[in-house]
Amino acid sequence: MATKEEITEFLASAFPQNKSIVEQVGNASATVIHPVGFDELRPGGTVSGPVMMTVADVALYVAILGEIGIVPLTVTTSLNINFLRKPSADRSIVGVCKLLKLGRTLAIGEVSIYSQGVAEPVAHAVGTYAIPPGSR
Amino acid sequence: MATKEEITEFLASAFPQNKSIVEQVGNASATVIHPVGFDELRPGGTVSGPVMMTVADVALYVAILGEIGIVPLTVTTSLNINFLRKPSADRSIVGVCKLLKLGRTLAIGEVSIYSQGVAEPVAHAVGTYAIPPGSR
Amino acid sequence: MATKEEITEFLASAFPQNKSIVEQVGNASATVIHPVGFDELRPGGTVSGPVMMTVADVALYVAILGEIGIVPLTVTTSLNINFLRKPSADRSIVGVCKLLKLGRTLAIGEVSIYSQGVAEPVAHAVGTYAIPPGSR
Amino acid sequence: MATKEEITEFLASAFPQNKSIVEQVGNASATVIHPVGFDELRPGGTVSGPVMMTVADVALYVAILGEIGIVPLTVTTSLNINFLRKPSADRSIVGVCKLLKLGRTLAIGEVSIYSQGVAEPVAHAVGTYAIPPGSR
Repeated sequence: MATKEEITEFLASAFPQNKSIVEQVGNASATVIHPVGFDELRPGGTVSGPVMMTVADVALYVAILGEIGIVPLTVTTSLNINFLRKPSADRSIVGVCKLLKLGRTLAIGEVSIYSQGVAEPVAHAVGTYAIPPGSR
Repeated sequence: MATKEEITEFLASAFPQNKSIVEQVGNASATVIHPVGFDELRPGGTVSGPVMMTVADVALYVAILGEIGIVPLTVTTSLNINFLRKPSADRSIVGVCKLLKLGRTLAIGEVSIYSQGVAEPVAHAVGTYAIPPGSR
Repeated sequence: MATKEEITEFLASAFPQNKSIVEQVGNASATVIHPVGFDELRPGGTVSGPVMMTVADVALYVAILGEIGIVPLTVTTSLNINFLRKPSADRSIVGVCKLLKLGRTLAIGEVSIYSQGVAEPVAHAVGTYAIPPGSR
Repeated sequence: MATKEEITEFLASAFPQNKSIVEQVGNASATVIHPVGFDELRPGGTVSGPVMMTVADVALYVAILGEIGIVPLTVTTSLNINFLRKPSADRSIVGVCKLLKLGRTLAIGEVSIYSQGVAEPVAHAVGTYAIPPGSR
C-alpha cells in the first residue's frame, strides 16, 4: 500500500505533466482535484472532455496505487465515460474513485466527477487497469 | 458541411490548446494526427492514455463538423476506449474516425488509433456527441 | 411517476417474456430480481452474461419509468457492463439501479448487479435511455 | 483453431439455450444469425436490446473460439453497446465480429449488428473476453 505522500511524490517525479492533486487515498478509494484554467476550457465556457477523462484516469490510478503500492507500469486498459452536466468554468474538477474490484492482474473502479462544491456530478466514468503480473 | 481548411481554422481560433492536425475530413470520416513529445509520454516510454482519449475525441468532433458544418456547441456525451497495444514513444498518434450514425441531435462514431506508420491499432474508441437542436 | 404495482402490471402486459420482478422503485432508483434456472446458466456453473445485461437493462428501465411514468417507447441507447466476479449458479440475480441524470430526453444510470445475498457485486453497468420528446 | 462445425456442435451441447446460428468463422472474425420471433420483440414492434447484446456476445465468443479452439471457460469481461437504429421486427439479427486484439489472456473485438438484408447497422458493440491462462 502507498500513502498520499508517497503517491504525490511519485506522480511529481514520474508524471511531471500531471496537474491533479491527490486529496485522499485509501480504503479502495481516492479523491483528486484538477485546477481549471485556460488550458482546460473549451468554447461555451466549459471544461473540455479530455480534462475530465484525465481526472477519471488519474483518480483510478491513485486509488489502485493506494492498495497495491507504487507499481508504475500499471496501465489503463479501458475507460468509459458519460458526460452528465456542463461543468463550471471557474471551479476545479474533482474526481472521486471507488474500486469495484481489485484482482491480481486487473482492477476496475468507478469515478464520479464534480465541479468543486457542486453536489450533482458532471460526469461518471468506469475504468479498468492492468496490473503487471507478480507485482502483488 | 465544413472543409478541412474551415475546420483547421476553427480549431485554431476556438481551441488554441488543441495539438491535433486535421489530415482528412469528409464522407462521414476524419483523420487527425497528434505529435508526441514530452507532454504526451508517461513512465515505461509510452504515450499517456489521456492523449489517446483526446485524439479520439477530436477525430470524432472533426468528422461530425465535416458533415454538419461549424457548430461549436456540439459536445461529447460519452466515450468508450479500449487500449490494445503499447504505442510507440517516438511516433505521432493518428486517429481515424468513421461515423456510425449521424442523427439530428446525436452522432456516434468509432475511432481506430494508431502509432503513425504501424499497421495494428494501439486503441479503439466509440463516442457519442450531442448536436444542439436546430443546428442542422 | 409510476408505482411498483403500475410498472409490474405494465411489464407483465407489454413484456410477457420478462422474468425480472420489481422489488423496489422510487427516488431515482430501482431494484429488480431475476430468478436463475436452466435458461440462465452457462458452462462452468455460472449465470450467462446476457442475463446480467438484461437485468441491468430492466433495472434502468424500471428506475426511469418510476420517475417519468409509463412511457413504453423509452428505449436503451447504450449500455456498458463490466463483469467483476463469477455469479452463483443457485442464487437469483439482483440489479440495483441509481439514476445519475434524468434529462428531458435522456436518462443515465448505473446498476450494481449481485448474486442475491452476496455482498460483493458480480457486475456493474452504466446505461443510457432515450425518452421520447414531449413525454415529460 | 476450431471450425464452424466444431463450434456449432459445441454451442449445441454446452449452450442448449443459444439460438444464434454460426454463419461464418475464421480470420479473426465471425458472423452469427439470430432468428427473431415472439421472444425477441418488445413494445413498438422492435427487437429487444438484450437480444442484440446476446448476439454481440455470441459473435465475439465464436470469433475467439475460431482462433483459440474450444475453450469453454473463456468468459466475457466487458461489453459496450450503442443502439443506432430501430431493428426490423420481421428480420433476423446478424452480428458480424472482427477481433481487434487477440492476446494470451485477453481478446477484444467489435461487432456490427444488422437487421438481415439491411445495409445500415442497428447497433455496434465492443467487448472483451478473458481467456483462461495456459489455454493457448
